[in-house]
Amino acid sequence: MHTQGLGWTASGDLKILDQTRLPAQETWIEISDVETLAEAIGSLRVRGAPAIGIAAAMGLVAILHAQTAGTTGTAGTARTARTSPTAGTAWTAWTAWTAWTASTAAGVTGAAGTGADPAGSRAAFLSAVDALIERIASTRPTAVNLRGALERMRRRAHSAEGDAEAVVAALREEAQAIWDEDRAMCDAIAGHGQLLMQPGIHVLTHCNTGALATGGIGTALGIVLRAAERGLNPEVWVDETRPLWQGSRLTAWELARAGVRHTVLPDSAAATLLAQRKVDVVLVGADRVAWNGDVANKIGTYPLAVMARRHGVPFYAVAPTSSFDPDCASGAEIRIEHRGSGEVAAPLGVRVAPAESRFFNPAFDVTPAELVTGYVTERGIVHPPFEE
Amino acid sequence: MHTQGLGWTASGDLKILDQTRLPAQETWIEISDVETLAEAIGSLRVRGAPAIGIAAAMGLVAILHAQTAGTTGTAGTARTARTSPTAGTAWTAWTAWTAWTASTAAGVTGAAGTGADPAGSRAAFLSAVDALIERIASTRPTAVNLRGALERMRRRAHSAEGDAEAVVAALREEAQAIWDEDRAMCDAIAGHGQLLMQPGIHVLTHCNTGALATGGIGTALGIVLRAAERGLNPEVWVDETRPLWQGSRLTAWELARAGVRHTVLPDSAAATLLAQRKVDVVLVGADRVAWNGDVANKIGTYPLAVMARRHGVPFYAVAPTSSFDPDCASGAEIRIEHRGSGEVAAPLGVRVAPAESRFFNPAFDVTPAELVTGYVTERGIVHPPFEE
Repeated sequence: MHTQGLGWTASGDLKILDQTRLPAQETWIEISDVETLAEAIGSLRVRGAPAIGIAAAMGLVAILHAQTAGTTGTAGTARTARTSPTAGTAWTAWTAWTAWTASTAAGVTGAAGTGADPAGSRAAFLSAVDALIERIASTRPTAVNLRGALERMRRRAHSAEGDAEAVVAALREEAQAIWDEDRAMCDAIAGHGQLLMQPGIHVLTHCNTGALATGGIGTALGIVLRAAERGLNPEVWVDETRPLWQGSRLTAWELARAGVRHTVLPDSAAATLLAQRKVDVVLVGADRVAWNGDVANKIGTYPLAVMARRHGVPFYAVAPTSSFDPDCASGAEIRIEHRGSGEVAAPLGVRVAPAESRFFNPAFDVTPAELVTGYVTERGIVHPPFEE
Repeated sequence: MHTQGLGWTASGDLKILDQTRLPAQETWIEISDVETLAEAIGSLRVRGAPAIGIAAAMGLVAILHAQTAGTTGTAGTARTARTSPTAGTAWTAWTAWTAWTASTAAGVTGAAGTGADPAGSRAAFLSAVDALIERIASTRPTAVNLRGALERMRRRAHSAEGDAEAVVAALREEAQAIWDEDRAMCDAIAGHGQLLMQPGIHVLTHCNTGALATGGIGTALGIVLRAAERGLNPEVWVDETRPLWQGSRLTAWELARAGVRHTVLPDSAAATLLAQRKVDVVLVGADRVAWNGDVANKIGTYPLAVMARRHGVPFYAVAPTSSFDPDCASGAEIRIEHRGSGEVAAPLGVRVAPAESRFFNPAFDVTPAELVTGYVTERGIVHPPFEE
């Protein structure tokens, strides 16, 4: 049993479980406007590379659904267009399109075209879709899956036949396909990962790579959750994962929901566990894998890999093949995103450091391929050199 | 310029800077009763191995001063005896002694002795001192310096001549000597450590080993503070040091007060700094050094040493020779204290992990001697095998 963090509402909007409030509160947010979606992605209410991509695609559909229903009146119930004036380009494009459709619906002819010009309507609509996609993509500029999912939606929008309503229907299919494919990918990874599992195994993991981070059972944590479903009774050591506590807040919550034994620890205590031979295998996710096998992942992954090697514990990176980048020769080419100082200066909103201090807060580190025992993907456990 | 965290008040009591409130508030606590002292040590209001020992010795004097002034009336002003009924054995011993001294002062004869029996008074007093020492020592059972300082006070009490008042005077001398020796020891360490310093050096440190932790300029951080005094303009990378934030709360505060450039980071980001060659030397403290050179120190020290070695950065443990234990052959013999789950489950009082989770919270880890470049002590920079 695992807990998905996103879905469709009964009315076809996107709903997400607000991950910033876990584990204290299980709050679902319904999304049908671009600012709510952008805020949810930017503030990590939805997080995890695959989940962000899926949420963006589904959110785009929900926004278009609300807008087309509100402006063309063909969707049965009138809906309020909730795109806010702060959306910039997306707002401007929407304003142009909705003005055009409104004038067309009213039978007014003007510079923008006429009601008998479906090609003009379609072009304006697609332009608005493109602007919305840009707005959503800008919320996490370094998130490859976000950009990838939205690019796929853009291509589908432009290749779909028919009017705005038909395009939205095609996009809903596409978003569902993105989700379904991720779920299947998670299942395949979890299946291949069972090769690494055994009864009563002790797994150490970092950050959150479970169902919350994906559209399925998860990646690295998905292997453990599947092992638990199979009755192998795994026990999980969970790094709390400073500075955003994805381990204690999210991974521990998922494991608790699934009834899996687990113990949370400060990141710096993992070395002691490894030295004490209390870990059988380390499983982590991968935000990006360079073509030589270097792994960019949550800050703290690299020292974990070094300690695992020192103590002879196998260390696996778990990720879909879509995270393997043939255009990135090695980890040296991976640009590391640095996050704001607040997460270090004022953890959980409580100021700990003096006003005079500066802060170093890289989001990721790079683990060299030599430290990675293997890569668990939907195609099996692989090693470099990778095939295209 | 460095900031001491303890001292005498004008009336001869102990005062400590409440380290749990730093850096937000600079609150001094005046201590002249055993429960306040025990709470201050147990709650880490005063912390750092040398500082705890000094505070315990000075606090013992303050408590005895208050008690003897309150019961014998010879100290000029009457003082209220503030030993609380919760002190257990210490309270019982005090009750016996104060009852005895009161009856003696009133000229009442009885089973406990007479006013003409100074030997009986002295024995009762020393018994009360011993009970107080046991009560104070029990607050941090694994703190070697605490036990050591109190043992030294106990010996001085029993060897001092004269009545209770004379014994308290001797104990005040002894407490002052413990403090003075620690200050001189810090100065000697800071002096020898200058061999490792150079203009603009980048130092990485963990936990707090500055003036707050000692009776002088500090140990590992003392070297940096002294380098700053010498105009070498060091720059310090400060591990935040989960789970108790001694880095962001205390080390950053000391460096800010001293005007030293510094940057705070999550513990797990230190590996990235080392990989990026942004660190010239790692300086850490040592709670205990085994005779083979293995170092027990704050959790997170061991992975730091491993990463420093991997990236060719020198790693020094800084500690007085009193922390080197000839009776401890290797780190394998060091018992690691585990602290309560709250520090991991609810950092800064904010619950992050689910109720079902378990927690792993070792206070220390053990760094093998092979990873330690050298040991900076008050006698110079040494290497194993150590001389007695």
